[in-house]
Amino acid sequence: MSGWLDALERLAGSRAKAGLTRQLRPRPAADFVVDLAGNDYLGLSAHPQVIEGSARFLDAYGLGATGSRLVRGSTEAHAALESSLAEWMGAPAALVFSSGYLANIAAVRGLTTVCDLIVSDAYNHASLIDGCKISGTRTIVAPHNDPAGVAAILDAHPGQTALVVTESVFSVDGDLAPLAELHRVTSARGALLLVDDAHALGILGPRGAGGVAAAGLAGLDDVIVTVTLSKSLGGAGGVIAGPPQFIRHLIDTGRTFIYDTALPPAIVGGVQAAVSIARAADDRRALLSSRAAQIVSRLSAAGFAVVPPAAAVLSVPAPGPEAAVAWAADCRDRGVAVGCFRPPSTPDGTSRLRLTLNAGVPDAAFAHALDVIVECAP
Amino acid sequence: MSGWLDALERLAGSRAKAGLTRQLRPRPAADFVVDLAGNDYLGLSAHPQVIEGSARFLDAYGLGATGSRLVRGSTEAHAALESSLAEWMGAPAALVFSSGYLANIAAVRGLTTVCDLIVSDAYNHASLIDGCKISGTRTIVAPHNDPAGVAAILDAHPGQTALVVTESVFSVDGDLAPLAELHRVTSARGALLLVDDAHALGILGPRGAGGVAAAGLAGLDDVIVTVTLSKSLGGAGGVIAGPPQFIRHLIDTGRTFIYDTALPPAIVGGVQAAVSIARAADDRRALLSSRAAQIVSRLSAAGFAVVPPAAAVLSVPAPGPEAAVAWAADCRDRGVAVGCFRPPSTPDGTSRLRLTLNAGVPDAAFAHALDVIVECAP
Repeated sequence: MSGWLDALERLAGSRAKAGLTRQLRPRPAADFVVDLAGNDYLGLSAHPQVIEGSARFLDAYGLGATGSRLVRGSTEAHAALESSLAEWMGAPAALVFSSGYLANIAAVRGLTTVCDLIVSDAYNHASLIDGCKISGTRTIVAPHNDPAGVAAILDAHPGQTALVVTESVFSVDGDLAPLAELHRVTSARGALLLVDDAHALGILGPRGAGGVAAAGLAGLDDVIVTVTLSKSLGGAGGVIAGPPQFIRHLIDTGRTFIYDTALPPAIVGGVQAAVSIARAADDRRALLSSRAAQIVSRLSAAGFAVVPPAAAVLSVPAPGPEAAVAWAADCRDRGVAVGCFRPPSTPDGTSRLRLTLNAGVPDAAFAHALDVIVECAP
Repeated sequence: MSGWLDALERLAGSRAKAGLTRQLRPRPAADFVVDLAGNDYLGLSAHPQVIEGSARFLDAYGLGATGSRLVRGSTEAHAALESSLAEWMGAPAALVFSSGYLANIAAVRGLTTVCDLIVSDAYNHASLIDGCKISGTRTIVAPHNDPAGVAAILDAHPGQTALVVTESVFSVDGDLAPLAELHRVTSARGALLLVDDAHALGILGPRGAGGVAAAGLAGLDDVIVTVTLSKSLGGAGGVIAGPPQFIRHLIDTGRTFIYDTALPPAIVGGVQAAVSIARAADDRRALLSSRAAQIVSRLSAAGFAVVPPAAAVLSVPAPGPEAAVAWAADCRDRGVAVGCFRPPSTPDGTSRLRLTLNAGVPDAAFAHALDVIVECAP
């Protein structure tokens, strides 16, 4: 049976016609590119203390965790990181997963043990959407960042226990969810609130504790938080933080926790070092704030419709997918890496450049990169 | 709303009564335990060349990949590893994911683009089952390792394009699927065959190329293979290997590929070194074979019903979940790590010790571990 390959070729042809072909571009270790595309917001992925923390655990434990968390994969490094993260985020307990994707699936699915209705923000990340889908629980998509819309949905389903799912800082446009208002809506109606804080951890809140902490919701009984270790912390992995009873539930029943190889100890060690740096990195957070103002000012002056970013992510509309690809390619040719987001990666079906801030980029390189983005515009 | 925590407490109480509570036991770097529980079959996770390969990429690239594969996460290290894996496995192309779990979800979901019926082995891994579920495609569970049963299901659905999903070496009992027979069934009926080769890569086949290669099915147009980098290769991550048209399809549309941070370059570098060692490790594979014979002989003589393992995994039935937990705990107290698998981690609802072979364990320690297992039996 090779007819399936012909069918895939035809689909690839349709995507190419629509400008939706994606290309892997492997980068060398030293690519001398100004990074306005990655998620290394605090510039910690190559910090000497982070490298040293990772190397130490690589030597001590070896490369992999050699098993799932419940068999051989839990090391003292994992336990120490879970304590540090919980303390930082102001959560009673935390559990590390091998990826944010798998953490989000586990969080949504685990919470539907006690919830029979999901209300999911229209712009939520693919992993949250997949979590809703795999849970098999009825899911209603709510208008983006609309607490009144969420309230109306909850009020229309009075007999059900609902789970409201949102990001704090949304991953494409970088806008901030109205978390405090959302929580007023959920807590008044006996609903739970799940917040993916991946793009706010290390950036927002006291000592970078995240968007949930910034909204005054850290540690509440009816708020569950997920984060990743791959963005401001420069590593890899995901986390669920919440009440110990829920963490216990995940350890006993979370399929993407139980049946997955643990995060490598060397990654855990590097992230542990990054947490220490991130907590004290108010200087880096201040730099990101001033860079955010700088990028909005520069791009607005050049006529682009940009919204001031809540954290370290923002987007610039492009006329279409091909134009977005060409814009990003021209920037890349001039030494500036920017994200190019097209359907289905954009929540509203339009294409844009996605720009990120990285405290590790020197001032002059950042200013030059803004010039390049403007000069390469379609 | 804290009633949900009471509900979770009640569920935890029920699990405790049924002997199904799980406990994380963080291990120190030097735990002096004989490992008959992990998946480091070839003993490569702490191999000096693997550590060195990882450290080199840690220094060169930093800790994390800093983005998804399509943004900043693809490095030359990822591309080189994908070439090496494809060549080793005899596949036309390969794509690295951050975990085997996410690779399996992508493989099943991606193949349902061209298939409208899934036939899934009753003992398949949680990640394959989740892939079936999330695909939304009608799934029929086939009797375990039963090509005639699969044929009957396919023959009962003549108008549909089917995907047959199996593992090669099953993860709990370590038995081998009849891959050649299964392929005769699928190819005669225009169905595709997806094989999770995670527990056979590095162990079975010419130069350890895996169970699919051992069955003479490598590189066929209608066979798609997934593996992990966290078992015989001692690292972390997952892989899909198959026709380039399918890999292309995954890059453009695979949600768990597109929306996930890439595997850290340092892990990629360590695994690349492990691949080189594993291909040449016929001596380690011979040791595993003789260990398999030794373990069956020793446990059979002691009265246990053990089946000779196809690769490096086998299981020993226990009278029940509490007995399995006590057995494993007694072994651990005497310095031997064994797996304790209880529902829902066992396909048939019974509990057992799961033992694994590790070529890195010295002969004397292995023999001692067998004594301990027998002496601690309930």
